[in-house]
Amino acid sequence: MGESSLDVVGIGNAIVDVIAHAEEKDLVALELTKGAMTLIDAARAEFLYENMGSAVEISGGSAANTMVGLSRLGGAAGYIGKVRNDQLGGIFHHDISTARVEFPTRPAIAGPPTARCLIFVTPDAQRTMETYLGASVGLGPDDLDHGLIRRAKVTYLEGYLWDETPAQEAFVLASKIAHEAGNKVALTLSDPFCVERHRRSFQDLVEAHVDILFANEIEILSLYQSKTFDQALQRIRGRCEVAALTRSEKGSVIVAGEEVHVIDAEPVDAVVDTTGAGDLFAAGFLFGLARNHDLAACGRIGSICAAEIISHFGARPETPLDELIHARMGSGVRD
Amino acid sequence: MGESSLDVVGIGNAIVDVIAHAEEKDLVALELTKGAMTLIDAARAEFLYENMGSAVEISGGSAANTMVGLSRLGGAAGYIGKVRNDQLGGIFHHDISTARVEFPTRPAIAGPPTARCLIFVTPDAQRTMETYLGASVGLGPDDLDHGLIRRAKVTYLEGYLWDETPAQEAFVLASKIAHEAGNKVALTLSDPFCVERHRRSFQDLVEAHVDILFANEIEILSLYQSKTFDQALQRIRGRCEVAALTRSEKGSVIVAGEEVHVIDAEPVDAVVDTTGAGDLFAAGFLFGLARNHDLAACGRIGSICAAEIISHFGARPETPLDELIHARMGSGVRD
Repeated sequence: MGESSLDVVGIGNAIVDVIAHAEEKDLVALELTKGAMTLIDAARAEFLYENMGSAVEISGGSAANTMVGLSRLGGAAGYIGKVRNDQLGGIFHHDISTARVEFPTRPAIAGPPTARCLIFVTPDAQRTMETYLGASVGLGPDDLDHGLIRRAKVTYLEGYLWDETPAQEAFVLASKIAHEAGNKVALTLSDPFCVERHRRSFQDLVEAHVDILFANEIEILSLYQSKTFDQALQRIRGRCEVAALTRSEKGSVIVAGEEVHVIDAEPVDAVVDTTGAGDLFAAGFLFGLARNHDLAACGRIGSICAAEIISHFGARPETPLDELIHARMGSGVRD
Repeated sequence: MGESSLDVVGIGNAIVDVIAHAEEKDLVALELTKGAMTLIDAARAEFLYENMGSAVEISGGSAANTMVGLSRLGGAAGYIGKVRNDQLGGIFHHDISTARVEFPTRPAIAGPPTARCLIFVTPDAQRTMETYLGASVGLGPDDLDHGLIRRAKVTYLEGYLWDETPAQEAFVLASKIAHEAGNKVALTLSDPFCVERHRRSFQDLVEAHVDILFANEIEILSLYQSKTFDQALQRIRGRCEVAALTRSEKGSVIVAGEEVHVIDAEPVDAVVDTTGAGDLFAAGFLFGLARNHDLAACGRIGSICAAEIISHFGARPETPLDELIHARMGSGVRD
């Protein structure tokens, strides 16, 4: 390893958020389901964008948010995800690079355009999201940068990407590369609908390839079709090295073999927008792990990062996270 | 053991609650600290009672409430606690006996009168409590019914009683009798102020004699002077066979060696009065343990009982608990 080491490389759907204000009557006219996240096709995306007010573009994507958070914590992060060589692709590349995340994936030069999530914000602060996955789901084994994965202590897989066969092959290959280099593999279950669609294959993936699992309460209940959180907790225990289970205001539970930690949620003055809470929890937790903190400290760092992100709009941090962690936890945890 | 076996025998302060309505101006005139629980002496108790409106007497006492709850669950319970042979002593004896709890302790025939908690309920539903411990804290080793302790699967000690030397000697002796008979010893830390006063000796008691510890979050944090719940959890783990840590609306965490269970609080429509939540959680948990349910089920039964008690005034159940558990958990848990 001639090159400097990375803490984490994330692999996920590369998406740009396109955010505009809208009136209730606009939602009705455009036949949008208020408050929901809907997957749409290219034609519909084109149509909606043309009928949207003036918008702001902010790079998003779950694992990309996590890598940006990790970088803001002072960690060294990389990212693998597919955009097209178009304007939105350029925006995504610009934003993640200026956040000092290594992003070597070559953009597609043909095929569908860069993925986007069209977000209509109504005066009541609700978000109606229409997602066109475009180029992002075209990621396959050939897009993996083997060197990047070998250099990263952890390879972090975004469950959202587990829909198409080439992406699934990419996940398995990335896991093998990481493990052969003596590194760890992490997975986030991403979304309850994701788990619904892929329950059996997610179970297999977790048991065969995953060392560190991230899931929120609804996702882990769905994965094992458990009735109570405790039942799910007992099921996942021992099935992977570490499971970090997040429970919103109930905090999180970290399980690692015989170790079990019950971590409180970090207090927040006012919850403004919960988008990105899971992404930033993962950022904090993985940063802690990569820097050899104990699991309770990893959970605490994750909670502090999640609390920052839900106290404002958007899934990218507005506060220097390294200073925030330092202030809350003291110098013992800062690197 | 010629006699039939008991599930649990509780040892605690035998107290009668004396409840009356009062106006704000009454509290001022009587110099009462609104909302607080204050310990008072005999003369003050006499004076306050004379100046109190017409009152209702309801037998209370933390461990006594737990034993009544256990009986309502269908369990066989016993109680050891000290009253005086006066009218309030008669009321206490009547109430606990009609709840089918064996109560063989002989009343004192001299010395201070039966303990009482004078409760002033203001129109805003707040409770101002003035407690005179009287005869209850006079309990000593001679008051222990050895046969009762030998017959009980669990001997349950109420931390409130751990103030006077004879009561402390009684706890240690009761623990020895229980263990020699092959039974278990449980302790509730009862109250954060109790833990403050006796931190070191409570730690010793837990390590030397206690198999099953009950504590709420504030109490366990105080016992080990921990900053976070997780730190306290790691400290108690392995120091006694089972620790049942209650966290109000956050549910409970049960630790038993390698086993750790995270149990949700049972939903409640409206919290009316939290008095007795811990007492009834212990009732449900101990009932489950005595009937050989797994620890997760014990926690769940405890949560259901606690939810019942906080949905109305007072610390004695108003719903047949055995039917409630049956309805919520199915026939698998009923005996």
